Amino acid sequence: MTLNEQAAVDLGAIRRLRPLVHNITNFVVMNETANVLLALGALPVMAHAPEEVAEMVSVAGALVLNIGTLSKEWVESMKVAGRRANEVGVPVVLDPVGAGATTMRTRLSLEILEVIKVDIVRGNAAEVAALTGMAAEIRGVESLAAGASIDSGAALAHTRGCVVAVTGPVDVVTDGRRIAAISNGHRMLTRVTGTGCMASAMTGAFAAVQKDCFLAAVGALVAFGLAGEMAAEVADEKPGTFHVEIYNAISALTPEKLRFEAKVELA
Amino acid sequence: MTLNEQAAVDLGAIRRLRPLVHNITNFVVMNETANVLLALGALPVMAHAPEEVAEMVSVAGALVLNIGTLSKEWVESMKVAGRRANEVGVPVVLDPVGAGATTMRTRLSLEILEVIKVDIVRGNAAEVAALTGMAAEIRGVESLAAGASIDSGAALAHTRGCVVAVTGPVDVVTDGRRIAAISNGHRMLTRVTGTGCMASAMTGAFAAVQKDCFLAAVGALVAFGLAGEMAAEVADEKPGTFHVEIYNAISALTPEKLRFEAKVELA
Amino acid sequence: MTLNEQAAVDLGAIRRLRPLVHNITNFVVMNETANVLLALGALPVMAHAPEEVAEMVSVAGALVLNIGTLSKEWVESMKVAGRRANEVGVPVVLDPVGAGATTMRTRLSLEILEVIKVDIVRGNAAEVAALTGMAAEIRGVESLAAGASIDSGAALAHTRGCVVAVTGPVDVVTDGRRIAAISNGHRMLTRVTGTGCMASAMTGAFAAVQKDCFLAAVGALVAFGLAGEMAAEVADEKPGTFHVEIYNAISALTPEKLRFEAKVELA
Repeated sequence: MTLNEQAAVDLGAIRRLRPLVHNITNFVVMNETANVLLALGALPVMAHAPEEVAEMVSVAGALVLNIGTLSKEWVESMKVAGRRANEVGVPVVLDPVGAGATTMRTRLSLEILEVIKVDIVRGNAAEVAALTGMAAEIRGVESLAAGASIDSGAALAHTRGCVVAVTGPVDVVTDGRRIAAISNGHRMLTRVTGTGCMASAMTGAFAAVQKDCFLAAVGALVAFGLAGEMAAEVADEKPGTFHVEIYNAISALTPEKLRFEAKVELA
Repeated sequence: MTLNEQAAVDLGAIRRLRPLVHNITNFVVMNETANVLLALGALPVMAHAPEEVAEMVSVAGALVLNIGTLSKEWVESMKVAGRRANEVGVPVVLDPVGAGATTMRTRLSLEILEVIKVDIVRGNAAEVAALTGMAAEIRGVESLAAGASIDSGAALAHTRGCVVAVTGPVDVVTDGRRIAAISNGHRMLTRVTGTGCMASAMTGAFAAVQKDCFLAAVGALVAFGLAGEMAAEVADEKPGTFHVEIYNAISALTPEKLRFEAKVELA
Repeated sequence: MTLNEQAAVDLGAIRRLRPLVHNITNFVVMNETANVLLALGALPVMAHAPEEVAEMVSVAGALVLNIGTLSKEWVESMKVAGRRANEVGVPVVLDPVGAGATTMRTRLSLEILEVIKVDIVRGNAAEVAALTGMAAEIRGVESLAAGASIDSGAALAHTRGCVVAVTGPVDVVTDGRRIAAISNGHRMLTRVTGTGCMASAMTGAFAAVQKDCFLAAVGALVAFGLAGEMAAEVADEKPGTFHVEIYNAISALTPEKLRFEAKVELA
């Protein structure tokens, strides 16, 4: 099966199985990522209390950890949830928002990677580079860096034994062995906050139905990139309208659309 | 006066009196419920610090407690605010989001019901069933359960001496004595996150102007259901557009619309 | 250069320099203010952990403190970030949301003003009056008070040695010496939550490129008021659509638009 066909099949599975995706995520995108998951066909739950995360993740299809507005207390909950996810075989996605931007974010991201077996890291080039110790220019959480995605992605994949999905003008997904390049997407995705977080949430949904995390990450980024293209067609240069159209587009995605319009190739 | 007419009168009162609705709610829907209250004609305030909630609720027309992204600290604030609301006669609405989904949520919901005199519980069938000890399938906070609303609603109303509003394909409101069934609404309301929370916030606004909490809950669910229908007419199957149109629809509601298009009957 | 021309030049500078604006803000508007800053051309970052705020603010162009959903812990982070901002010369904007509505909010706003050199206070008439000890009717955080903006603004500017920007039907900006009145804006801005917070975030972006904080505040309020007018032209009375159109309008603002359509005069 080609990567396109696999993405199409996995979207169909999400729509059919409606996997529950447990998010411990940042305050900025809680509503937005929940709506992205609903639009995709998955069921979102946001829960961060240390007393309940282990129980919640046990019935989930995937766990998405996002450090966008981190505090020490939330990291503890992430560890509790992540350890339990590892025990029960629930795939874990980590979005290291702003790693490299502050010492704390880099350190806590690495700490999470030490304590939990993370299956997929989804970040931008600067964040992924920060986790490998490679230098990259970072300004806040909206990274301006580009390129070097393959090198730092592969390095992180090797060190951590995980899949790394680096989003940017061209998205790169690698498990250290296979490398896929995805050229779906649209520059308007940089005009709205939280689009990286949305991609990570969707990665969780795909991982819930596709055991091969490399394929799951590819499917999610193809789907999100395509949705970005569809939204931009309606919204043109208007960021407010584009934001609304992202949900419409994700909801309107079909397996056929993914099969025929995915721009993905093995590098 | 019929239930339709009463709902119409109460909407008029909200528009005229602009009651302040104090919300201690979850991170996912803070912006959305505030905008719903503004669109309805009420004034929202979100405040959770234990040092200020008693003072804030004292000048409010209603208190809405929503456990969607609960933590122990927030429950303490809910208790402080709720006790003060009871003292000064401010009606209290509880939205037990995800009760039944984790032990913690069920336990803390019951704890709130012990400590505070809650006037209206607004939840879905699974959440209400969890609070009565009845079984129900729950997956995360997006309940897939249906039916049994009347039985569990009446049971909870009897045990707690409160009004119970169970939303679903048909909404059921009961105070243990009267039972109303509301068939306004639209399935698109399940495609956007936080619509249950929106209904609870609106219930607070209606309770601020209508002392009979049974009538208040009926009015709120009729109004919200109608707004859902109006939004779906514009948005069709597009969840992003539907989300935007919910606010437009709530703002465009008129007492006449409620009087003539409410589909509510005493069971 | 006239105030209009200066606002136009500063908008151009934001678009060119893309300043990073560090926000420690409330849960209700995190997504919305981030999107406003992106639409304007700035880069937002939301970070509140005490361990990272000093590092984050050191690389920022401005710091915006917003007490909308305050807790004691967050005030500590605000102080750490504010002190560091003072040390490294990063301008500080304070939005005292709900000051006057509860004792805690008034007290903590004053405490922040004691501990940090705040460059610009952006509030409504009731909030600013509360910080000067003047009386004003406040109901929750959606102030209904009007007028008296100039008096209380000037009083606060004198006491604190800062610029005060009081928004309302007519916005007033003063540094105690100069007074500007801005009549751009639209009443629909009161129909959506967080528009005051959006104005404060934009004030941070303008302060990042314009050292004269009086001119920065004027530029921000002119730009935001104009965007409100543009959004209302498209959205009419629909608050959901208006909310979406605010981002479209801010993104569509041009220096020429500010130069020719700003309604600002020195009083």
